[in-house]
Amino acid sequence: MPPSRHDRRSVVECALRLLDEVGLPDLSMRRLAAELDVQPSALYWHFPSKQALLAAVADRILDAVPRPDAELGLPAVGGAIRDALLAYRDGAEVVMSTYALRLGARRAQDALIASLPTHDEAQADAAFEFILGHTTLVQQRMHAQSIGAVDPDRADPLARADEVFQAGIRSFSGVRPVRRPS
Amino acid sequence: MPPSRHDRRSVVECALRLLDEVGLPDLSMRRLAAELDVQPSALYWHFPSKQALLAAVADRILDAVPRPDAELGLPAVGGAIRDALLAYRDGAEVVMSTYALRLGARRAQDALIASLPTHDEAQADAAFEFILGHTTLVQQRMHAQSIGAVDPDRADPLARADEVFQAGIRSFSGVRPVRRPS
Repeated sequence: MPPSRHDRRSVVECALRLLDEVGLPDLSMRRLAAELDVQPSALYWHFPSKQALLAAVADRILDAVPRPDAELGLPAVGGAIRDALLAYRDGAEVVMSTYALRLGARRAQDALIASLPTHDEAQADAAFEFILGHTTLVQQRMHAQSIGAVDPDRADPLARADEVFQAGIRSFSGVRPVRRPS
Repeated sequence: MPPSRHDRRSVVECALRLLDEVGLPDLSMRRLAAELDVQPSALYWHFPSKQALLAAVADRILDAVPRPDAELGLPAVGGAIRDALLAYRDGAEVVMSTYALRLGARRAQDALIASLPTHDEAQADAAFEFILGHTTLVQQRMHAQSIGAVDPDRADPLARADEVFQAGIRSFSGVRPVRRPS
């Protein structure tokens, strides 16, 4: 029987709040259950595994990405994906681990395919992997700065992040379709 | 006084072997010291922190990347970086955490700058971030398969990995220099 007080959606919302508060390494099913004041077994009614829960959290994070629309170019779509990942602590890592297992919806990939001049699926996946790599690095740097783990004598590791992101987006935008043998 | 039995280089070699054996989450200074049969304090003679040790491990992983050479194109250099990361368990994650803090040598970035038609540093950083994101995903998928965490009813998450990698490399190769206002 499902726990009466919490539906799937409210469990995901609570997981997102907890993610922002404690970060991915400390987001456990046990801790989430305590937060919701239920037994861990009640969570497994909605989600068969932690990975399934994280996939639902990843989908919720990417809800902010616009629907596929060929009128939106890669700079708009890529920027929207980056901003969605940055909106939650460890957002890029959550989405990356879900994408690694090919769980979760294809919201980001579908928007990317529509935005590319080539509409090529492999190139859209590559662009998504660039955005995930870039944003993971930015969030690792933000975390390191927040705990004082950055040597103040070294260059600010967050400087130039946007310049690098735009250079990557430009590279993926500029490619012309590869002619395939017919 | 430095521990007499181990120099910096042999500590790094042992850390690499241990990384391959136990993976990054279980690679601790304590475990490495036990492996070398010394006190943890002896390790700190060579490396002031675990992050400094990981930076030396990252440099050792990237030793296989060719020196900067404009004759080598991005497909050769990008492929060499990917293969160097794949040669050790969690190699991409070790290099990513080092690059996030701007520790470690610039071996990969310098080779990438030389290989790009534009020789543009921001674009080289973006290409490196794509390679790191891509290879992290591939290694997460390999790990998930090795522990049986992949649903056999779903598509093989490693299929198409090389096709996606080549699509990304083509995107970064094809871009023409951006004219800057003079």
